[in-house]
Formats: sequence, structure tokens, C-alpha cells
Amino acid sequence: MPFEPWTVLSEEQHYENRWVRVRAQRVRLPNGVEYDYTLVDRPAQGVAVMLFDNEERLLLEQEYRHAVQQVVWQVPGGLINESEPPLVSAKRELLEESGYEADEWLEIGSFYDNPGLGNASSLLFLARLPRRVSESAWDEAEAVELHWVTLSWLREAVQRGEIVDRVVLSGLGMLWARGEI
Amino acid sequence: MPFEPWTVLSEEQHYENRWVRVRAQRVRLPNGVEYDYTLVDRPAQGVAVMLFDNEERLLLEQEYRHAVQQVVWQVPGGLINESEPPLVSAKRELLEESGYEADEWLEIGSFYDNPGLGNASSLLFLARLPRRVSESAWDEAEAVELHWVTLSWLREAVQRGEIVDRVVLSGLGMLWARGEI
Repeated sequence: MPFEPWTVLSEEQHYENRWVRVRAQRVRLPNGVEYDYTLVDRPAQGVAVMLFDNEERLLLEQEYRHAVQQVVWQVPGGLINESEPPLVSAKRELLEESGYEADEWLEIGSFYDNPGLGNASSLLFLARLPRRVSESAWDEAEAVELHWVTLSWLREAVQRGEIVDRVVLSGLGMLWARGEI
Repeated sequence: MPFEPWTVLSEEQHYENRWVRVRAQRVRLPNGVEYDYTLVDRPAQGVAVMLFDNEERLLLEQEYRHAVQQVVWQVPGGLINESEPPLVSAKRELLEESGYEADEWLEIGSFYDNPGLGNASSLLFLARLPRRVSESAWDEAEAVELHWVTLSWLREAVQRGEIVDRVVLSGLGMLWARGEI
């Protein structure tokens, strides 16, 4: 679909730290309409890993997330360090969080957390053939638990509404598209 | 997994408008460690609709999104008006954006845009048996196009990296979990 970028008439930055940058813009659409637009950008983009073992079980983490005050099922991941190739970030995050390396890696896609609001995105990798090489680097008090879950458990957990992180759900959508699950 | 909520020691609000609220908190974890936490919350939660026609085609929208300066494939959806039942919001958004009503509705789950950052969430519905009852209410200059796409097109589009919205991808994950696709 052809498109014409919107014109930014003015911009005010309201907040910035290492995690987010919040700007309010006055923009003009191609049809001449003017509009106030709020942008919440993230300086660094994310990576995440869908790691399967040899029995087709997926590695999940249970972590307490303060922002939603609940324990959330997630996959290993984190932010890409500046100038670091995403696959290197993915391997680093997997190792730090789980103590696993993996012999097979495939980039399966990326998505925006909310393309109507900002640029925050995550790049997903499918990994297979895991090898445990160290303990995970979580402090016990961070209250993160690792679990290998079967696809049938995962199907039922999604149906019960227990999988609420967009990374895990989007990863399942990508794996479905590739015929991997 | 049992958990203990973190203690908020202090909080400063940095920005608020009708779309977002940005707060910086000083928090204490159960292990005693103190930490700075940034929260980007959304006052209203979202709904979205995966609408299939009688030939198992999904209704997608192509829309230019200023925040990422690209045209994004999405599904109809929007924000839940205060005190409005989510299904009512979903039906309203579908009708406004597409001109369709649907005879079969099923709630299939909800997810957070980023549970590490804020409370923004979307509740997804699967809808079937569409009836065209009006024109969509998009202004032409908003540059939104409606398309019915087959599942095989969708699989390939995901593999090509053309589906980048977490709602569409998470919806596919939910539909996979239910054996609907």
C-alpha cells in the first residue's frame, strides 16, 4: 500500500530515561488534518528465544512482574546491547537466564509491542538442541522459575488465559506459520 | 508460583494524557534490594477482533502507523470505553472500522503489550458469520485498507516478516491453541 509519511509540525519531549522516551507531537496528515500524537519509544530493541528440547518441550520462565503485579509466563530474552548482533544478544540472554546454550538457531520474525504508540520491538529466535552449561544467573529473590512445558500443556494454558505475554503468544503464532508446531 | 508484591517506596508522575501515564517508582523487592522502576500505563484497555468469513479468510486492515513510519497489517480493534462491556466495544470497533457485524463471537484471551513496563492489554475475540451492514467509517485519507486473507497467505506473510503487530501474531497463537487454525 503506498503511503505518505505524516509531517511533524512540533515536538515536545516529556520524559527520557534508559528505558523509555516520551514525546508529544503535533502532526499533519496527508489530508491536511492536524492531530496530537503521543510517542513512547524504547532506545533498545528486544530479543527473545523459543527454546525447545529434544522432547518438543518449550522453555518458559515464571517471573513476578511489578508493572502488572502478577506472575507472568515468559520466554528468555532481554534488550539488544548497542552494536551487538541480535543473535549474540539472544544467546547471551538465554545463557544468563537459563544456563542453556543451543546448537540450532533460526530467526523467526519480529513484532512491535504497539505500532500505534512507539517503536518498541522484539526479534524472536527459535532454538533447538539445548545444552546445560551453567546455573542460571537469577538471584533467587528475583523469583524466576524455569519450566519445560509440553505443547499440549501450552495449548491448555493459553485456553485457560494463563499465557498473557505478547512475546510467548506471538512466538506461537510465528511457529504456527512455519509449521513448527 | 507464590509471590510477594514489591513495595513502592516513592513515586513521581512524569507525564499523563488520555493515552498514557508515565511514572517513575523507587521500589523494594522482597529480598530487600531497592530499584528504580519505570511504569508506562494506559488508562483504557484494548479489544481486537479476529473475524473469519465463511471461506476461512481473516479480515485484516492495512494502516499507516506514524509511530513506526510504516504500513502495518492489523485486525479491527480499539479501546474499551469506560464501563462498556468489552464485547460491546469489540462489536462497535468492528462495525466502525469495517462495516461488518458478525453472528458468532467467542472471547479467546487477553495479553499485555509488555508486562515488564505497564498495564496496557488487549482482549481478543474470535468472530464468525460476518454480515456487511454499512460502509466502514474510515476517512479515505486515513489510508486504511481492508483485505480478506487466506490462512495460507497469512502463514507466508508471517514467514516473510510482513506481520509485525503483536495483536495479529498473538491472536494466531491463541487460535492455534484452540485448534481453530
